[in-house]
Amino acid sequence: MADLNLIRELVTTADTKIVLLVLDGLGGLPCGPGGPTELEFARTPNLDKLARAGAIGLSMPIANGIAPGSGPGHLALFGYDPVKFLVGRGVLESVGIGLQLTPDDVAARGNFCSVDDNMLITDRRAGRIPTEKCVELVTMLKTITLPGVEVIVEAVQDYRFALIFRAPILSDKLSETDPQKVGLTPLPVKALAPQVRHTADLANEWIAKAREMLKNEKSANMLTLRGWAKEPRLPGFADLYKLRSAAIAVYPMYKGLASLVGMTLIPDLHNLDEQIKALVNNWAKYDFFFVHYKYADGRGEDGKFEDKAAEIEKVDAALPRILDLKPDVLIVTGDHSTPAVWKAHSWHPVPTLIHAPGFTRRNDVSGFGETECLKGALGQFQATDIMPMALAYAKRMNKFGA
Amino acid sequence: MADLNLIRELVTTADTKIVLLVLDGLGGLPCGPGGPTELEFARTPNLDKLARAGAIGLSMPIANGIAPGSGPGHLALFGYDPVKFLVGRGVLESVGIGLQLTPDDVAARGNFCSVDDNMLITDRRAGRIPTEKCVELVTMLKTITLPGVEVIVEAVQDYRFALIFRAPILSDKLSETDPQKVGLTPLPVKALAPQVRHTADLANEWIAKAREMLKNEKSANMLTLRGWAKEPRLPGFADLYKLRSAAIAVYPMYKGLASLVGMTLIPDLHNLDEQIKALVNNWAKYDFFFVHYKYADGRGEDGKFEDKAAEIEKVDAALPRILDLKPDVLIVTGDHSTPAVWKAHSWHPVPTLIHAPGFTRRNDVSGFGETECLKGALGQFQATDIMPMALAYAKRMNKFGA
Repeated sequence: MADLNLIRELVTTADTKIVLLVLDGLGGLPCGPGGPTELEFARTPNLDKLARAGAIGLSMPIANGIAPGSGPGHLALFGYDPVKFLVGRGVLESVGIGLQLTPDDVAARGNFCSVDDNMLITDRRAGRIPTEKCVELVTMLKTITLPGVEVIVEAVQDYRFALIFRAPILSDKLSETDPQKVGLTPLPVKALAPQVRHTADLANEWIAKAREMLKNEKSANMLTLRGWAKEPRLPGFADLYKLRSAAIAVYPMYKGLASLVGMTLIPDLHNLDEQIKALVNNWAKYDFFFVHYKYADGRGEDGKFEDKAAEIEKVDAALPRILDLKPDVLIVTGDHSTPAVWKAHSWHPVPTLIHAPGFTRRNDVSGFGETECLKGALGQFQATDIMPMALAYAKRMNKFGA
Repeated sequence: MADLNLIRELVTTADTKIVLLVLDGLGGLPCGPGGPTELEFARTPNLDKLARAGAIGLSMPIANGIAPGSGPGHLALFGYDPVKFLVGRGVLESVGIGLQLTPDDVAARGNFCSVDDNMLITDRRAGRIPTEKCVELVTMLKTITLPGVEVIVEAVQDYRFALIFRAPILSDKLSETDPQKVGLTPLPVKALAPQVRHTADLANEWIAKAREMLKNEKSANMLTLRGWAKEPRLPGFADLYKLRSAAIAVYPMYKGLASLVGMTLIPDLHNLDEQIKALVNNWAKYDFFFVHYKYADGRGEDGKFEDKAAEIEKVDAALPRILDLKPDVLIVTGDHSTPAVWKAHSWHPVPTLIHAPGFTRRNDVSGFGETECLKGALGQFQATDIMPMALAYAKRMNKFGA
């Protein structure tokens, strides 16, 4: 895995186009002993053809045994070591609902909870109140003001909300208030570093005002705050890779992650058809296109093996429309594996395909799938290598040393 | 990749011989979809036999996407992390023409250029003057003296020359003078660190004197200096690996790189036949032999697929003469890939063969080539692993820990 400073030094520009097509949770496991994975079960004539003519292999998002969340998974695909560049939970929760963060922001994830008369927690999730109730409570909390600080509160889902303090010189070195057990009192926010007292005081003041507003609620009469975080200050795609980059994604979380690395977000996309049209319409304006397809992951988490395969087939069917644009480099991969039999993200390396006509080594493979990828020309490699390879294939990397 | 300190600690001596046979730019790409690479196209009965009986795999010079120059490519083969041990352009240019550097030296690459009456650059390469003109101008520049410093100037090729200042306490933390664009004035040399002013002053004084000599030249009436560098202070083969090592190379660049790691240079070699004879004649005197064959790289850079294959065949034909010496370990590899279709160095991993009779695992391979190497017993690995493996196969590495 090459160092980002080295890559930045070697990157140059060229009149070439790169498409990174991410099938969320693409990697899978057999539904039974000796059986095919979801990708192998799916009928994917276009991907199979690209696999035979291009180069395939297995990309490791983090390391053997480490299942990544969406944040680390995508950071790796974008070329950033996800263990080095941590995206805190507060930031993920905020970008996940489409909030744009600034360097001044400190974000936390909020949970409504239930407390008794002695302020002891009786339910850490406030009886899992519905999202509408969450929205109603958050509307109330929006009226809280703090001196010299802009406060942003937005409902997320069920009992969860995002909280952002925006002002210069705030810190995220703050303790969490959730004691992690019922029967205990929510903790005060404490400063975890020198000179952070000011931010801690602001947080505690906001909590006190919020409690005052919530105290007569039946279940959601208190809240806890976790995952204090500032945006991770990633070197952006323009600066690092000299790429004009566009994110063609439907879900806020992935648009948010793309915005953290400086991609332009193409707005108002609701399905794969609109995404492909956006790709076509923006082809001239950008060098790099991140196209994100969500549903393979969702069906995997639901344990729906055949449904996940069917989602992969939908992307396969759309592939000719992407190839019609004649990208210099097309990468097809996932941010992690989500095997249906596992019903969750897993650490298994992810099938990855590089289409760069004329410049890939021979694969003796029959198609695109986990078993064939073991034999592929790319071997097994870190997911952070995908961007350097894409740039190199697109003739956007100078030689290292003379 | 093992740490050099660990390797140094484990290395021991033995009465064994290692040959590292480097075919420069060995790795390739298919000339057409599904076709063979240069190495696969070449008829190489001897290499194929060794591949079947030995162990093959793919070595990664730097990282996926990073195409190495000759310097970093060879450093990796010699076991040094080429990103950590940088060989600056000034040093490469100097060793490339056979100059031996000392720890006191600061080297730069010089370019003759053309300037107008206002000292604005009109041609950064002085109309690509012929080498004879370069030699003539450099002969003139050799007469420049500086107080307390030995100055070495040597012509390289066309408009390029090497410049070395030799004196204690000089620094390479100096700015380059090439503004990288025509229409701009050559920049002064600036100190990039504290206490480097003295070296910067010397450089500027030398430039002023050179300009005075060049000012009436028609095209090469000025010069620029780039890539200031000191020798990289590599731990040598004797100290690090306890090896008496010899470099059997024709081209100055590779002799220079070998001299940076302390190999003894076998002089007066002009072709492969002389190189093999030198190997035979020096067999008793050394433990390790670096044999460098240049032309596979050159034909690759020219885009000559079949010519590159023919160069590989020449080495294959010479192989029995090497095997007659019964080396305990023979490594056949390249410093990087130079696919003819790419016409340049590339990042693709390099076919690598280890011949260590009796001690390699079974390869189910038909011969030596990129596609077969994917199935080889060595897998894919960093090129810096080659030296530790060679030493281990030669029974020159102790066990780590009890």
